[in-house]
Amino acid sequence: MEQTIVLLGAGGASFTIALLKDLILTETLSGSTLRLVDIDEGRLKEAKEIAESYNREAGTSIKVEAYLDRRDALDGAGFVICAVKIGGYEPLEAERKIAQSHGYYRGIGDRVSCYFGGVGAYLQIKFLEDVANDMMELCPDAWLVQTANPVFDGTNYLTRYTDVKTVGVCHGHFLAYNVAKIMGLDKDKMSAEIIGFNHYNMLTDFRYEGKDAYPLLDKWIAEESEAYWKSPAYLESTNNYGAVPEELSPGAIDFYRIYGLLPIGDAVRSATPWWHHTDFATKEKWYGPNGGFDSEVCWAGYINDKTVYRDAIKDVLSTGKPITELSPLEKSGELHIPFINSVVTDTYERFILNIPNNGCIPGIPDDVMVEIPAVSSARGVQGIKMDPLPRRIMDNVIYPRMRTMNNLHEAYRNGDRSVLVLELMHDNRTRSYEQAKNLIDELLAQPWNKEADAHYR
Amino acid sequence: MEQTIVLLGAGGASFTIALLKDLILTETLSGSTLRLVDIDEGRLKEAKEIAESYNREAGTSIKVEAYLDRRDALDGAGFVICAVKIGGYEPLEAERKIAQSHGYYRGIGDRVSCYFGGVGAYLQIKFLEDVANDMMELCPDAWLVQTANPVFDGTNYLTRYTDVKTVGVCHGHFLAYNVAKIMGLDKDKMSAEIIGFNHYNMLTDFRYEGKDAYPLLDKWIAEESEAYWKSPAYLESTNNYGAVPEELSPGAIDFYRIYGLLPIGDAVRSATPWWHHTDFATKEKWYGPNGGFDSEVCWAGYINDKTVYRDAIKDVLSTGKPITELSPLEKSGELHIPFINSVVTDTYERFILNIPNNGCIPGIPDDVMVEIPAVSSARGVQGIKMDPLPRRIMDNVIYPRMRTMNNLHEAYRNGDRSVLVLELMHDNRTRSYEQAKNLIDELLAQPWNKEADAHYR
Repeated sequence: MEQTIVLLGAGGASFTIALLKDLILTETLSGSTLRLVDIDEGRLKEAKEIAESYNREAGTSIKVEAYLDRRDALDGAGFVICAVKIGGYEPLEAERKIAQSHGYYRGIGDRVSCYFGGVGAYLQIKFLEDVANDMMELCPDAWLVQTANPVFDGTNYLTRYTDVKTVGVCHGHFLAYNVAKIMGLDKDKMSAEIIGFNHYNMLTDFRYEGKDAYPLLDKWIAEESEAYWKSPAYLESTNNYGAVPEELSPGAIDFYRIYGLLPIGDAVRSATPWWHHTDFATKEKWYGPNGGFDSEVCWAGYINDKTVYRDAIKDVLSTGKPITELSPLEKSGELHIPFINSVVTDTYERFILNIPNNGCIPGIPDDVMVEIPAVSSARGVQGIKMDPLPRRIMDNVIYPRMRTMNNLHEAYRNGDRSVLVLELMHDNRTRSYEQAKNLIDELLAQPWNKEADAHYR
Repeated sequence: MEQTIVLLGAGGASFTIALLKDLILTETLSGSTLRLVDIDEGRLKEAKEIAESYNREAGTSIKVEAYLDRRDALDGAGFVICAVKIGGYEPLEAERKIAQSHGYYRGIGDRVSCYFGGVGAYLQIKFLEDVANDMMELCPDAWLVQTANPVFDGTNYLTRYTDVKTVGVCHGHFLAYNVAKIMGLDKDKMSAEIIGFNHYNMLTDFRYEGKDAYPLLDKWIAEESEAYWKSPAYLESTNNYGAVPEELSPGAIDFYRIYGLLPIGDAVRSATPWWHHTDFATKEKWYGPNGGFDSEVCWAGYINDKTVYRDAIKDVLSTGKPITELSPLEKSGELHIPFINSVVTDTYERFILNIPNNGCIPGIPDDVMVEIPAVSSARGVQGIKMDPLPRRIMDNVIYPRMRTMNNLHEAYRNGDRSVLVLELMHDNRTRSYEQAKNLIDELLAQPWNKEADAHYR
């Protein structure tokens, strides 16, 4: 069934390759068209060449088109996948440095702050709003599959204030399988229910061979955790950018001790308490050597990792080496194409997706996006009703994150700078109103925030 | 219609007098019995003598009985009014001093912390639980009218975890009339809707001669506030204990500026932001000379005021002067007896009461106590459905206060000291986990907290 799928932000090479491979390997979508969109002409050209290499090598039927203007690409599209990070990472790093000089180690907000795309997430929210307006004009029935951060704040904006059919997709919850792996369990015998907000999700149901596996975790903590944290498997097993496996780090286990559920994936660094993240040494204590993904060391490695991958791609393109050698043609594990396929073929499939709560998690307002098990089909997406989260997670983790999102929206909708300051007043590092206000003012005074500076009066 | 009304904590002379006067002046309750209960024999005797003086002077039909054992008094009661502050104020002051030595000016938590009755509100919650158990045994159909602080945390505990019919009563919202008075308006032409939690309530509807009066407030702020804050009416008009009128203080107006609604009564000091309350000089800036009710100066005056009143009563009792000279026989303005009267006579009356939300304020869980307009009768209490509170009040004021209450309950129900520490980690003055933990440990190690120390493992 031929579809027209638009990828916004196609210049991010690794995600474009992942998506293309999934599309190639999904037979029911054969003959579909993938429209690559990026404002960076050089990167767009690269992305198209890579796609054509796959087509050539694999002999597939996927048509690939490249667009500098997103409106041309959106016209008549069936699905729009948004992977756009406006402004790239340089302003983000510059904003972090400014925040540090005001007393905010590693920048404003929680550990996901790095994904907000700048103060107040202005650029990301504004972009999504523009895309939604374009879609309502050019492809009003299309689905917007939002995958760029902040997924929680962004998809919430779309569902609250626009009429675009929106779903949020993130792969972080798959890291639950690493929990089984570290515990020495067979991951194929494990099942998991992971719920909450995006990057704030917890393992609410954990089974091994059909039985509750939390007692196994308790046993592992009592008998094996200390040895594991001293073992080479933990201390020396870093990924490319230098982060150790965080899933069962002391920080994740401390979260479990406080709240009674294990945080999963990005939640291990985003939803864990502020006193785990006060400085590099403290981060190392809780999240292992190099201090976890968001530390200055690992984040620099992550940025560098992107350059290394891009160089490898450039090498492939210039030498004519097979692209399938760099990135073999196998499924990526991302949910975007499987989700699209279930909608297109009207096949009921269970994914973990970001959708408006509508009563699925008790105590969360209906119009707030939750990341929960959901069933997709041509009918759309239906969330599965969950048990309540533990009260202390609701009060100490969920509502504070909801507040951040709501405050960003309040500030944006009203062009009200004081609400950006208000949000920062909740930050434990804030000592005075002036300190917070000065930081917001200085951030908005940067050249890349000119539009935001005018917006937030 | 003769009723049996129990007053727990009758040794607090001024409240006992207020209640008795209301009872005497409510004809439909003539012939009722007021059972005074206190564990302090001397104070109980005093209270009984005062009551008898009123009876003698006014020739009323109210029977007064005194009980040292509350179980004797509860037997067969129709209404139980609870005004008990366990342990008195001395341990509270001692705990504040300890907290200050750990970096927490004026004690733990928000400004209502002074009313928690000690770390974790243990003594108050435990007492209410015991009273509820006694009532279920001795007077299962009686209403518990809870008026001792913390009203919010206490009534929530009662309605969630016991079967006693509970309502919370506080007179703070009547201070809305002072707003009209300060603005130079005729208070009889004003009407007000004040909603939220106890001590966290806002003026959601403010009318003068039937029309929205917020524009009048905006005009007053623009044209008169600065002059008012420099006038003797503000700077010199203190109450007995040295607090200036807080209703339209710079702090109250700043709350209005941030959130869009005026805080009322105790909310002016309890719900206003932490950066208004960092030290005495800052409190003076926002709440006038002497820094508002909770400052070290005014609080000391408040405690002293109680002694002065008690001395005056002792003087009346020893000299045989008429009690009606010290406290003339007129209605007190408290809601307890009018509420009881409406239930007894099945007269529908509108009060502002603390009851489980049950959908009245959107976004607040059904089982959380809200202070809202409600209609009472023999049928019980029915809340009136309200419009949503502004989102920024929900996120930045309401949910954080709900968190404090839930965390106190979580700690109490599970005997879990770490949840007391967790709550304190949200305090902006907390710099490290150790700082908070050390404070909780030191507070629980005090002699008056021996039982709590054993409870919170």
